[in-house]
Amino acid sequence: MQRNSVKVSMAVVRRLPKYHRYLGELIEKDILRISSKELGKIMGLTASQIRQDLNCFGGFGQQGYGYNVVELYKEIGHILGLDKEYKCVIIGAGNLGQAITNYEGFRREGFKLMAMFDINPRLIGNTIRDIKISDISELEEYVVDNDIVIGIICVPKENSQEIADTLVKANVRAIWNFSPSDVKVPEDVVIENVAINESLYTLTYLINEDNLDI
Amino acid sequence: MQRNSVKVSMAVVRRLPKYHRYLGELIEKDILRISSKELGKIMGLTASQIRQDLNCFGGFGQQGYGYNVVELYKEIGHILGLDKEYKCVIIGAGNLGQAITNYEGFRREGFKLMAMFDINPRLIGNTIRDIKISDISELEEYVVDNDIVIGIICVPKENSQEIADTLVKANVRAIWNFSPSDVKVPEDVVIENVAINESLYTLTYLINEDNLDI
Repeated sequence: MQRNSVKVSMAVVRRLPKYHRYLGELIEKDILRISSKELGKIMGLTASQIRQDLNCFGGFGQQGYGYNVVELYKEIGHILGLDKEYKCVIIGAGNLGQAITNYEGFRREGFKLMAMFDINPRLIGNTIRDIKISDISELEEYVVDNDIVIGIICVPKENSQEIADTLVKANVRAIWNFSPSDVKVPEDVVIENVAINESLYTLTYLINEDNLDI
Repeated sequence: MQRNSVKVSMAVVRRLPKYHRYLGELIEKDILRISSKELGKIMGLTASQIRQDLNCFGGFGQQGYGYNVVELYKEIGHILGLDKEYKCVIIGAGNLGQAITNYEGFRREGFKLMAMFDINPRLIGNTIRDIKISDISELEEYVVDNDIVIGIICVPKENSQEIADTLVKANVRAIWNFSPSDVKVPEDVVIENVAINESLYTLTYLINEDNLDI
């Protein structure tokens, strides 16, 4: 396929994981071919939107024939970089950090959790799923020595920027931040601030939408 | 303010929690007045985008004077429905469910966690932060009897649709779903499927973007 010279918009990029997930579910159901119309129906998008999205990457379908589900799943996985391995560390070994070690979309793909870090003396030295919890003072050296690619921040918001700064100093490529406050990083570091509560507040908005007295 | 007759677009709605969060952080820093330009700079939006967004709700600023941060924070909190109380249950009392009971954006606002449910006999009967974990077979009756408004699903994807169906049958108004598979609900039930891994896969996309051989 031809390399696309135009940078793909973030709106399209953010839909790619959805394509990947829905295609994975089709494979589980043994559906091996699908039209853009049918795929659109499942995903709540129009057929033309789907064709446009996939055209950003050179297009995959054949006119009147639809998409080969397995092939498209693999291609999108490749585009998302899910066919590579990423060495990760989790900072904050509380419930959220532990939940992530166990999270399906994290465990299944090429994410290799190397170590966890915490400040709590009762957690330091323990292991979770064979992953050791170390003292946070060892974070920087560990990340440098082990070529860690992704740092996952699961600490309270008061400490998140400091942890991010340490990770940046130690040359991580990306930070996945779960603390409910955005952290700032230099431009060459990839950041995803998750902010779980935003979806909750969207929910409460929608609950009240019809009675909004504004 | 005048009620807006046009339905506000979901893109704007999804930005409202961000406004709320950033304004909250400004208040913590004792910044009590801000121009749309300055606010835009902090949030990575243009001043005109900010004015447009807030105009959907009647507008709040005064020309040449900027926004009153506390007032705007309160107004947006009100629009998001955060000045009300919501009775919630969590289904799945594992790490993720426990992490949510502890999550700042959940604890602080008007979310009243009433009960947790699980199928694991080792968890049933225990309490987490004074919240009892009950057998999942008691879910439907509990939700009906206690007028639960929001059900929070933290179970594996194999069981998530069944739990959602039970919650719908028991008349919840909304479901916040953390299982990595979308659940379907009738139109009158509000649903937010969180899919944490989507942000992770966006991260790996961005790590590889410059070397993408497509």
